[in-house]
Amino acid sequence: MVLPSPAFVRGIARAGNVETSSAGMIVRQRSPENLEFPFHTLERWITPNDRFYVRNHFAVPNLDPRAWRLRVEGAVRQALQISAEDLRRLPSRTVTVTLECAGNGRCLLNPAVRGVQWGLGAVSNAEWTGVPLAAVLERAGLRDGAVDVVLEGADTGPAPNEPTLGTIPFARSLPLAKARSPEVLLACRMNGADLPLAHGFPLRAVVPGWYGVASVKWLTRVVVTDRPFAGFWQTLDYTVVERNRGLPVLAPITEMQVKAEIARPRAGEAVPPNASFRVFGAAWTGESEIARVEVSTDGARTWTAARLLGEPVRFAWRLWEYPWQTPAGPGRVRLAVRATDARGRTQPLERDGGRRNYMINHVAPVEVEVR
Amino acid sequence: MVLPSPAFVRGIARAGNVETSSAGMIVRQRSPENLEFPFHTLERWITPNDRFYVRNHFAVPNLDPRAWRLRVEGAVRQALQISAEDLRRLPSRTVTVTLECAGNGRCLLNPAVRGVQWGLGAVSNAEWTGVPLAAVLERAGLRDGAVDVVLEGADTGPAPNEPTLGTIPFARSLPLAKARSPEVLLACRMNGADLPLAHGFPLRAVVPGWYGVASVKWLTRVVVTDRPFAGFWQTLDYTVVERNRGLPVLAPITEMQVKAEIARPRAGEAVPPNASFRVFGAAWTGESEIARVEVSTDGARTWTAARLLGEPVRFAWRLWEYPWQTPAGPGRVRLAVRATDARGRTQPLERDGGRRNYMINHVAPVEVEVR
Repeated sequence: MVLPSPAFVRGIARAGNVETSSAGMIVRQRSPENLEFPFHTLERWITPNDRFYVRNHFAVPNLDPRAWRLRVEGAVRQALQISAEDLRRLPSRTVTVTLECAGNGRCLLNPAVRGVQWGLGAVSNAEWTGVPLAAVLERAGLRDGAVDVVLEGADTGPAPNEPTLGTIPFARSLPLAKARSPEVLLACRMNGADLPLAHGFPLRAVVPGWYGVASVKWLTRVVVTDRPFAGFWQTLDYTVVERNRGLPVLAPITEMQVKAEIARPRAGEAVPPNASFRVFGAAWTGESEIARVEVSTDGARTWTAARLLGEPVRFAWRLWEYPWQTPAGPGRVRLAVRATDARGRTQPLERDGGRRNYMINHVAPVEVEVR
Repeated sequence: MVLPSPAFVRGIARAGNVETSSAGMIVRQRSPENLEFPFHTLERWITPNDRFYVRNHFAVPNLDPRAWRLRVEGAVRQALQISAEDLRRLPSRTVTVTLECAGNGRCLLNPAVRGVQWGLGAVSNAEWTGVPLAAVLERAGLRDGAVDVVLEGADTGPAPNEPTLGTIPFARSLPLAKARSPEVLLACRMNGADLPLAHGFPLRAVVPGWYGVASVKWLTRVVVTDRPFAGFWQTLDYTVVERNRGLPVLAPITEMQVKAEIARPRAGEAVPPNASFRVFGAAWTGESEIARVEVSTDGARTWTAARLLGEPVRFAWRLWEYPWQTPAGPGRVRLAVRATDARGRTQPLERDGGRRNYMINHVAPVEVEVR
């Protein structure tokens, strides 16, 4: 098995030559604002609020929390209008959840594909506090025939690449089973503070184990539908190819794929010869846990187990390290990492084009220089 | 009501400056070949085979009729492989059906939208002979849980605008109810002759009342699925926006919309003053019949009934004429036509952007010069 990866290395380099915000975030897009966590600065398990990646599809809506209501309607027995105060009176939970954008790593693809050109850092981990969506659905009461639960944000704008569609809201649905899972929250707090505006104030969904697109921000409406919901963000965008009886079909992106990334060394970094170098990074998966992280120092030919740090926390990433004895050099070395989860899923060695511009989790070496 | 339609007139003009094939067809695209019936030459109710519009997504496959088999599989009790000879032994039907491409009239849209820039003539009417799809499905026997019937063609190629998807086949599905309707044919003859290669030899679907995209050519496989089929040609392409509880959702294009077109006079044509001029054209609809065609000679302000010619034939277009007393002139006049069907649907006066680049049936005046 040989990994071509100059493409990857070029991608990283491309990712490096960009603007940074005052908080040190990489600015991938100014308007709407799309900010990347500089993944090589990873230290702690929890990403601070001002370092958590920001993915916006439209301009940030500025909602008045006193006037704001969450409407719950559609195939429910009792439509609801819930205020922020009402929500505070309901039992809440706190969960630590890693969110990854479905386009994370996109700038590493060669040839380039459309979309925000994320490097490694459209992924972050935070502690979220809020009311389970299940509790709100139970209050409203589902009617027979309920199928999907649509989460609608207050953010609206022109549909990407579809100039004739006019203004559309950001909205995404969960199938009933996921919507009723106890881990899915309507979160109003992030790392112990009020939800920042950029992260969905006053209320956002947090859908553990699923790509970030499911965790709709600035929630204003929960609509229970009696037909599968075919909204823009799960048909034209945020879909990948699966197979139905041998035929290619488009399916909405849902669960995160197993993935590890190297924070250090960075691509292109010079490392000392004949030394012990701590290779360090994070690994995450969807509705499972990381079981194993392996590192290769020979371009993905042979693999050695890395050490998993801390304790496993379902839906949160796991930090890992690998003590690398660097060679005598001088020369270039390709480091690679791959993760495997408790369901036995391992990162693939090659990119599957059927994933369009999403779900980028193939093994992607990082080239460093020993000197 | 005032109709802007310089856009329309420009569109027609744009449509006029194009190459024609040896059979007098307008060449909209050379590869794959997309040929338009020059609608201003409309005379007869039946379109001859060599004048019937040709819509290809990929290169034309050249199938050996002796080796060819139609495979019927999926959620069926008995998978089948049917030869051309087997098909000839089954009871056949002959129906006259108008097919219209879902993009017909696209070159009239302003601003322009992507796709083949059809003028008025991606619509034609022919007599088709074949075995009802229902009879083949009955032979195979549907299993419980069958949902959709996918029609797969032998034509394959790169998915439009999706460079990472690689080669995909042309395939489109019908819901079970339509697939079992007696009018849906697997046709091997067209206007009394063998199906021409360009029209799907040796076998194509003919789905009366639906846009042409449903009438898959060069059929090789009928796959019954137990889940809604979300193939490329009914998710990314050939979908329009509908509403589900107030939210925009994408839905596959199905039934044709009610529509009339003027064949003569042509846009920009000079007509004599103070004369009787026969305005002439065709009108069609989906799963209904044309009830009324009206003509306006004052830019869609007032309307007068046209005369419907011949007898109504369900699923076939209806020719119509209108004896116009031209004004003294000189000057420009905007002629418009609109059709209404037996279900009371009338052509809208304005374009709905939610239809993306498809289903173009708003009233679109034709400007002529009286002199």
